[in-house]
Amino acid sequence: MFNVRQAVILGAGIGSRLKGKLNNRPKGFLKLGNMPIIEESVAKLIRAGINDIIIVTGYCYEFYNTLAEKYPFVRTVLNPEFATTGSMLSLCTAASYVTSDFLLLESDLVYEYSALRTLQNSPKENCILLSGQTGSGDEVYVGIQGERVVNMSKERDDIKILGGELVGISKISLKLYNQMLDITKEKCKDISQYHYEDCLTDSSDSNAIYYECVENLAWIEIDHENHLCKARENIYPLIEQRDAEKILSKRVSRNILLNPGPATTTNTVKYAMVVDDICPREHEFGELVNGIKQDLVRIVHGEDMYEAVLYASSGTGAVEAVLSSVVPHDKSVLIINNGAYGKRMQQICDGYGISHIDYNITWGDPVDCKKIEIILEQHKKDISHIAFIHHETTVGILNDITAISNIALQFGVEIIVDAMSSFAGIPINIKSSEIHYLIASANKCIQGMAGLSFVICKKESLEKTKEIKPRNFYFNLYQNYSFFTQKHEMQFTPPVQIFYALRQAINEYFLETEQRREQRYTEMYEVLEKGLQDIGFHFLIEKKYRAKILTAIIEPEDENYNFNEMHDFLYKRGYTIYPGKGAKQNTFRLANMGAITKNDITRFLGSLKEYLVVNDIKLFPVKQSV
Amino acid sequence: MFNVRQAVILGAGIGSRLKGKLNNRPKGFLKLGNMPIIEESVAKLIRAGINDIIIVTGYCYEFYNTLAEKYPFVRTVLNPEFATTGSMLSLCTAASYVTSDFLLLESDLVYEYSALRTLQNSPKENCILLSGQTGSGDEVYVGIQGERVVNMSKERDDIKILGGELVGISKISLKLYNQMLDITKEKCKDISQYHYEDCLTDSSDSNAIYYECVENLAWIEIDHENHLCKARENIYPLIEQRDAEKILSKRVSRNILLNPGPATTTNTVKYAMVVDDICPREHEFGELVNGIKQDLVRIVHGEDMYEAVLYASSGTGAVEAVLSSVVPHDKSVLIINNGAYGKRMQQICDGYGISHIDYNITWGDPVDCKKIEIILEQHKKDISHIAFIHHETTVGILNDITAISNIALQFGVEIIVDAMSSFAGIPINIKSSEIHYLIASANKCIQGMAGLSFVICKKESLEKTKEIKPRNFYFNLYQNYSFFTQKHEMQFTPPVQIFYALRQAINEYFLETEQRREQRYTEMYEVLEKGLQDIGFHFLIEKKYRAKILTAIIEPEDENYNFNEMHDFLYKRGYTIYPGKGAKQNTFRLANMGAITKNDITRFLGSLKEYLVVNDIKLFPVKQSV
Repeated sequence: MFNVRQAVILGAGIGSRLKGKLNNRPKGFLKLGNMPIIEESVAKLIRAGINDIIIVTGYCYEFYNTLAEKYPFVRTVLNPEFATTGSMLSLCTAASYVTSDFLLLESDLVYEYSALRTLQNSPKENCILLSGQTGSGDEVYVGIQGERVVNMSKERDDIKILGGELVGISKISLKLYNQMLDITKEKCKDISQYHYEDCLTDSSDSNAIYYECVENLAWIEIDHENHLCKARENIYPLIEQRDAEKILSKRVSRNILLNPGPATTTNTVKYAMVVDDICPREHEFGELVNGIKQDLVRIVHGEDMYEAVLYASSGTGAVEAVLSSVVPHDKSVLIINNGAYGKRMQQICDGYGISHIDYNITWGDPVDCKKIEIILEQHKKDISHIAFIHHETTVGILNDITAISNIALQFGVEIIVDAMSSFAGIPINIKSSEIHYLIASANKCIQGMAGLSFVICKKESLEKTKEIKPRNFYFNLYQNYSFFTQKHEMQFTPPVQIFYALRQAINEYFLETEQRREQRYTEMYEVLEKGLQDIGFHFLIEKKYRAKILTAIIEPEDENYNFNEMHDFLYKRGYTIYPGKGAKQNTFRLANMGAITKNDITRFLGSLKEYLVVNDIKLFPVKQSV
Repeated sequence: MFNVRQAVILGAGIGSRLKGKLNNRPKGFLKLGNMPIIEESVAKLIRAGINDIIIVTGYCYEFYNTLAEKYPFVRTVLNPEFATTGSMLSLCTAASYVTSDFLLLESDLVYEYSALRTLQNSPKENCILLSGQTGSGDEVYVGIQGERVVNMSKERDDIKILGGELVGISKISLKLYNQMLDITKEKCKDISQYHYEDCLTDSSDSNAIYYECVENLAWIEIDHENHLCKARENIYPLIEQRDAEKILSKRVSRNILLNPGPATTTNTVKYAMVVDDICPREHEFGELVNGIKQDLVRIVHGEDMYEAVLYASSGTGAVEAVLSSVVPHDKSVLIINNGAYGKRMQQICDGYGISHIDYNITWGDPVDCKKIEIILEQHKKDISHIAFIHHETTVGILNDITAISNIALQFGVEIIVDAMSSFAGIPINIKSSEIHYLIASANKCIQGMAGLSFVICKKESLEKTKEIKPRNFYFNLYQNYSFFTQKHEMQFTPPVQIFYALRQAINEYFLETEQRREQRYTEMYEVLEKGLQDIGFHFLIEKKYRAKILTAIIEPEDENYNFNEMHDFLYKRGYTIYPGKGAKQNTFRLANMGAITKNDITRFLGSLKEYLVVNDIKLFPVKQSV
């Protein structure tokens, strides 16, 4: 979204048609609001992610130099020939400063912020901004063919197919710029009044130049006195109003995230982050945290016996917290690895030098409980914990908590369940499943925001870890727990706004209810599974082991198939899909978690089919029997 | 904010005046929108943080039982005598379920969400919600005296001082409820038609009952057919509109946080968090992270030579990341401790068993560089790093980076600077100061949100740490750095929304400029220092060592002074102040960081003076010479 970081502003011009109003200032120093229009433009550029602004100066250049002194990210470069040369030679003057793609602007433009966003968000590398009809009397009309710009003219009749009016803000790639420099060298042997618009057209044969048209964009270029009046009376107030609205009542559009979290959230969860500033050491915030802790326990039905410990971290942080805090120094943990997250547990243990015994399974195959028993039998005296993933999103397999926990009980070891991508999506009863530590994060099936992870700990087990010599500081489970218990404050600064989002997300969970959340997810899964099957896709995981929250799909072998192209095709249509990760066969993955519905899945399947048809991709000859 | 977690809804009534409209349903099952009004009420309660809702049923109780089946957090209890008893006996029926303070509501109420927030946010333990004039024809008027409720009546003439009209939503403490039960036992020997309103009045002598009045609250109780019409035509549409606005275009009020971070933020930073959902493994998000990384380096002028490494964690996490990742296993780190954060570095090293040599200084005293030289001389071969805090907020002292770094250079050791509370507030030149690792977080002087910390690393030094055997996983500095470098993605799920807020905060930093940010902070400090001095306060730190971003103030000895009372007095007025922390004298602390101005400080000083005057607190007899 902030792909372009440089901007060049053409500010050399004399503004001869405005002389009376200028009083020996350049046009950029006209004022409509509190600041000169050039300073307003600079502020908008900064807000749009630009951090290197080059102003080409000429007439009354000292004004711009003052601006450069005030703002360290503004640089000026003088075109000494400004009085006799066209804008393209001014643009050439900036050559030694331009090191990347940039936005090109004119200094006498007044425009709404969304003009910049339109170009920044455009996937087109070289892109000219157009608007609908302005009636300014000074229009530059832009002729197009398909998606490309072909010519520009002040005469409407020169244009065959009208794309819109030139605003004077463009996105120029470094490659195009270099070509423009070359062309200019050639052209300026003959003419000095060469303008950048002409140079763009002259370059458009070898470098595709595209456009983005915003029909009702509020903007004006101030060339005449009557422009100044029009700006003051109509355009500027409209720009001010729209910009303020943009910032303060931004409406979000809905993306369907089919990656395995962060998941799609509701607008109410998004807006819940906007709260009055508060110091998280205030009692009021402690109450918020306390309520969330209790509710996280309630979600897995662990009232009274369990305690939630919260971290400002990704989910991995909470897994690390458990492994580093609960395995005694003279014991080992049995890690079941049938996916990337099982493997991650091993990497964490390796990081700390925690002894671990690995039960490694080909990614895609189910756990064999017999093997667990054999390993436990062999290492009876060493193993204190079994750690495994509930829903392994690497492949979309569901490992059976109860089966594993029964064995654990038999051998008197504790279990650590990474339920990152199942918590609040698949009902879990932490008491009857005899889980000692259950780990999850705020941005998966509970449908909150990323930045907060948690562990639901059996209090009796947690209390015993007090005796284990710490292996770290931030992630120490017992310290975190006892700090909050004693002080009603988080030990370290929490992500305040993410807590408010989680509060709202939990409220929405209880409002939907455990049963109906599961039902919605299951329905989405069923629509997805049937749709994929009907299209002819094959699945990685045998039906009875599927988690019903993530599906790993075998990649087609057709040579027209390309994951990245499929991703981009769907991304443009509002769907985010996910690549495979080290499974026994090549896959791509689709998760059905988050604030989405079976209708979204149906629409997605339509777009997926469209991609296959458009690209003439054949799937497997025979349907998989499942 | 979510202090009350239970609610009791009185739903036993027959609704005799509405019979024609009810068709054998209870009043709560009337519909105005998509759901029965009781279900809308339940949804609002959940959103307000209530997770245990007890409905006392009677007439057509089966309807409510269906609701309890649908929502696991709704329970029903039947008052079998509903036809002949008043509402207080219904409330008594809930006794075995009520275990904490609760909200009491009537089942036939239609109300806007803010009604609940008003009670939840009220500091008053027992509190009745009142509104302005409704003209419903069925008003219950509430008489008050000062802040307390004294009587209620349907006759306006019974009321001496009118507080407002009874809405039918109240916050009742467990203590008050128990007393109400006792009173009811007594009363109901004689009468069965005893109502909870009367019982509240009867209890008000021994338990203070307060009120909150919302003058223009949108609400209606549906008792008559004409209420139903009025609700459909006017009140319900208004409620829908206000509730939607509340959620989607919530306006925030401005709190002045004088705690040392999280600091006050601008509204634009707050709203920057509301973005379309995005998977952080998308290229677009990688670009955002990349831009932020570059700009964080730019802020300390480390272009080309330095690299920013980002963590989803509090600032402490990033300190842990550096200490655990850069000190070789056979070396020690010299830790300068003149405050809680220096001490924290020692605790982190202890957690990992990293060898550290401590230079402990009484909290409040400055660093003596001679001592550092002596220690380095003594441990020449052992020490690889010096770690210290730039701005130690425990006491508000500024440790001199250049002085320490000069010694480090002399001895060929690297320096680790925790610049948590100075980064972007006090200009730092990381190159000329010869800093190897500089640590900060997003929620201090850069004025973003909490949940994101970072380390600005000298690339040359960072590259060398590749060889050090990791001590952990999540916080490994080199891994995090190389993962992003290779994949253009964060290693672990980042706090997406906090990144967008930081992007905006950085934009605003560059817009303000380094120089003007420092100037604004300094001006605030000067106003604060002079104001405190004029009032008669003494400071902990000698003037020349003061950081000018946080001031530790000696607590008055006057017996009327009480930090918590002062805090609450100021908190109510929008100012958050901070207690002291282990300094050589008792202090309280005031930070002047964040999106606030010297005018805020001036107004704050006025409120502080007011607190002292109101409580007749004498400061120190003699002014401190500074």
